[in-house]
Amino acid sequence: MIPEKDKKRAELAAEITERIRPFVPSTDGYQKILTEAMAYSVFNGGKRLRPMLMLLTYRALGGAAAEEKTLVDPFMAAIEMIHCYSLVHDDLPAMDNDRYRRGNLTTHAKYGHALGILAGDGLLNAAFEAALAAEEPDGSGRRIIAALRILAEKAGAFGMVGGQTVDVEKTGQPMSEEELTFVYRLKTGALLMSAMQIGAVLAGASKEVVDACGEIAERVGLAFQIQDDILDVAGTMKELGKAIGSDEKNHKTTYVTLHGMRESRETEENLSEEALAILAGLPGGEAKEPLAELIASLVGRTV
Amino acid sequence: MIPEKDKKRAELAAEITERIRPFVPSTDGYQKILTEAMAYSVFNGGKRLRPMLMLLTYRALGGAAAEEKTLVDPFMAAIEMIHCYSLVHDDLPAMDNDRYRRGNLTTHAKYGHALGILAGDGLLNAAFEAALAAEEPDGSGRRIIAALRILAEKAGAFGMVGGQTVDVEKTGQPMSEEELTFVYRLKTGALLMSAMQIGAVLAGASKEVVDACGEIAERVGLAFQIQDDILDVAGTMKELGKAIGSDEKNHKTTYVTLHGMRESRETEENLSEEALAILAGLPGGEAKEPLAELIASLVGRTV
Repeated sequence: MIPEKDKKRAELAAEITERIRPFVPSTDGYQKILTEAMAYSVFNGGKRLRPMLMLLTYRALGGAAAEEKTLVDPFMAAIEMIHCYSLVHDDLPAMDNDRYRRGNLTTHAKYGHALGILAGDGLLNAAFEAALAAEEPDGSGRRIIAALRILAEKAGAFGMVGGQTVDVEKTGQPMSEEELTFVYRLKTGALLMSAMQIGAVLAGASKEVVDACGEIAERVGLAFQIQDDILDVAGTMKELGKAIGSDEKNHKTTYVTLHGMRESRETEENLSEEALAILAGLPGGEAKEPLAELIASLVGRTV
Repeated sequence: MIPEKDKKRAELAAEITERIRPFVPSTDGYQKILTEAMAYSVFNGGKRLRPMLMLLTYRALGGAAAEEKTLVDPFMAAIEMIHCYSLVHDDLPAMDNDRYRRGNLTTHAKYGHALGILAGDGLLNAAFEAALAAEEPDGSGRRIIAALRILAEKAGAFGMVGGQTVDVEKTGQPMSEEELTFVYRLKTGALLMSAMQIGAVLAGASKEVVDACGEIAERVGLAFQIQDDILDVAGTMKELGKAIGSDEKNHKTTYVTLHGMRESRETEENLSEEALAILAGLPGGEAKEPLAELIASLVGRTV
């Protein structure tokens, strides 16, 4: 039996998928194959964790419901397309060379190597197009630009792409604790941080609250990554829909290889508790509950 | 002897190179190799045609000199980084598989295939970061968002990436006139159009003038592409710093293979004259001269 909160989360993911759909380009023109490959890369059963964090942060901090569609949906589409483009490029033969993801062929495996590159490029670009379609109630563009700056910074050379670079460069080599933390903080953490911070900025939160969201997200991101490492050892092919044990096979340094399973689980739980404590200290009441539930559920997830 | 106007243009290109430099990421951190590969891809002796068109359009339409640094420089950096990322990805083994450009190793040939992908990703992302660093005199962000929307649209699935997709998909196959025009309009034309239109938007031009800049750029873009095809047949290795005759070798449909050399030259000149006539009809006097000179010089260029 599926627990009620997991069901609710799956429903919200499905709702988010429909809300981001209008922002993913589609055409019958000569470049049809490109937009098909882009859509294939986005509508693949993803968990929509990043847009979900954004939306629940926006709601937790009192963002106006009436502005979700014009202000938050474009940014949810943007962050999900950035996440998806990063997976498409990570899967390429010159990178991780993965042919399956969530039980389906990866984009390059289905559409060819050139289209894998181009679909990723198109998605990164479409992410900014989507976010730029946002409309601010007062017409000023101040929140939109602030949110876009966070998005661009966290996705770039000092964020996700920077982390991915070090991860790829270190493939097959041992990593120090410091290097591993760098990769986790940038490759996965930066985008999760931008998800929460953008939700806060769009809700009109103060700088202090936006910073606190960064503190929460930093812990959530590291916990999430440690859980990934745990799942690579303990998960099953069925649950993940991809090959497991790949870290060990590739002699990859992970949190588990550095600290062992027990310490990894403990650290993950501590991080999660710290994140929840910071959230509890922020202004707002019941509206924070769904966000707190999501954060709590990230510990001990099986997929 | 180098003609005076070519010397002036080279000097302006050198000036633009220095003005965009602060926007190209640089670090001594773990991801140093990434920012090195990104810088290598940008500081490679490029002609800076796109930022130059943007700057000269801004000046032609009466843009304030005092705001060039805070408003135009970020967008010049953005459009040049988008141009450079597209070259880096086009050169990849899965795409055109070129090992040399302007007489130097291409990015992936020098830094490896994975870094070729990541440097391109990093540059596209950095382009938006750069543009988002722009500051508007009244603090509103209206011109910045309008300019960013043009940039993102023209670089994406309905612009440059869309054109590149069809170009790659049709490699080794004949193209119809309609397909070739589609590729030219999107792959090269769209970014040139955004260069001029962004220059106009940042200068505060009316919608009519921004549209007219699109009309000019459409002709300049097609003329530029036809000239590329002519050079592929008529140029020399020395002038281009890359292998010539590659179109014929690859059985590629070009304007020259469809229409022959004489008609191609005529069409190119007509397009250039039309572009200059539209420019002459726009408001403004002497300030338009440098832009007119640049457009005129694109016909009959040898590099």
